[in-house]
Amino acid sequence: MRIGELSKLSGVPIPTIKYYLREGLLPAGERTQFNQAQYEETHLRRLKLVRALVEVGGLSIAATRTVLELMNAQASDLARLGKAQYALTTRKEHEPDEAWEWATARVSELLAQRHWQVSPRNPARLQLAEALATLRRLGQDDYLVLIDRYADAVGRLAAMEVDAVLTRQNVDSMAEAIVVWTAIGDSIIASLRKLAQEAETVRLFGEAVFQAGAERQE
Amino acid sequence: MRIGELSKLSGVPIPTIKYYLREGLLPAGERTQFNQAQYEETHLRRLKLVRALVEVGGLSIAATRTVLELMNAQASDLARLGKAQYALTTRKEHEPDEAWEWATARVSELLAQRHWQVSPRNPARLQLAEALATLRRLGQDDYLVLIDRYADAVGRLAAMEVDAVLTRQNVDSMAEAIVVWTAIGDSIIASLRKLAQEAETVRLFGEAVFQAGAERQE
Repeated sequence: MRIGELSKLSGVPIPTIKYYLREGLLPAGERTQFNQAQYEETHLRRLKLVRALVEVGGLSIAATRTVLELMNAQASDLARLGKAQYALTTRKEHEPDEAWEWATARVSELLAQRHWQVSPRNPARLQLAEALATLRRLGQDDYLVLIDRYADAVGRLAAMEVDAVLTRQNVDSMAEAIVVWTAIGDSIIASLRKLAQEAETVRLFGEAVFQAGAERQE
Repeated sequence: MRIGELSKLSGVPIPTIKYYLREGLLPAGERTQFNQAQYEETHLRRLKLVRALVEVGGLSIAATRTVLELMNAQASDLARLGKAQYALTTRKEHEPDEAWEWATARVSELLAQRHWQVSPRNPARLQLAEALATLRRLGQDDYLVLIDRYADAVGRLAAMEVDAVLTRQNVDSMAEAIVVWTAIGDSIIASLRKLAQEAETVRLFGEAVFQAGAERQE
């Protein structure tokens, strides 16, 4: 198909497709004799994936490129899967203050208590430590009692997620599932959590709270 | 205190503090006779909150401003709390295709099944619908069996979160808790989920998967 058809089927505007091509997120089409690029079903599939990672997953162009490279790399077997998950975690600078020291110790403790074997190099450790350190710096320590409940819930979900990935037929398909589910799953859980919070508040206090909130949006 | 002290105590560089002042995220200090601005404990507290929302919560400057305005508004009682939660949800353009129609119907259905009373105007509905539509466009429908398990887990967490907010002494303190916990809670859950996924994979297959993943990071 030509680029116009690719745009129509994917819902991605042509200038955006050209941008993704320039950035190496989408492999070039095959040149035909009239110097027009021809695209295949695989381009359409890849384009939808890029769109999902950027738009819904909120990944930067550079992070998307890394994730796609890892997904396609000829690494043997399951090793690729771990790489893809690590690449999906944003890293940030952290300040090595008292709160940070406390938070990293709390992360190690939490993992040890649960017998969660996690590489010291998994960047999600830093993401969690940064969030805990921020709560401590803000003096929002009462929130911390919830962390263990979060870990219980997420532990159960992870077991189901890994099981679901393993029903995929081959490693390529597993790698794609991990990339998509990690990026989009965060968004699903975050939105469900907000909906459940509203529902719980309405259950306790009636509709007044959130309906008043909605008025301002109009 | 002067701006240098404010910077030292908060860990935020002076140029960043000046940027927040210009953007109205931090109220101006009081001018002393030598034309120097003087800052109080309340500035320090606000500055830490801004930093947390921007750095850990990933909010834009504009979204942070809206959240802070709502937090401080003299709205009566609990109405403010709902407003703050709505303002924390990012909105995106969506394509009204077949996947979108299907996804919005699925969201309504899920809320109805659980008797979750949620305003039609809660933006988290759109966030969830966009994520589900994306999965469908990518043909990752096997993931959808997990949504109900997510909703179960998140429903239990929301009940605990609302209870915890209600232990706060006054509405100001509740509003601050909702803002911070919503923004930072997403990051905590996302990172815990990645850690739990690795732990579960290691439990099933040994350490090879994620250790291989780590090598590339060095």
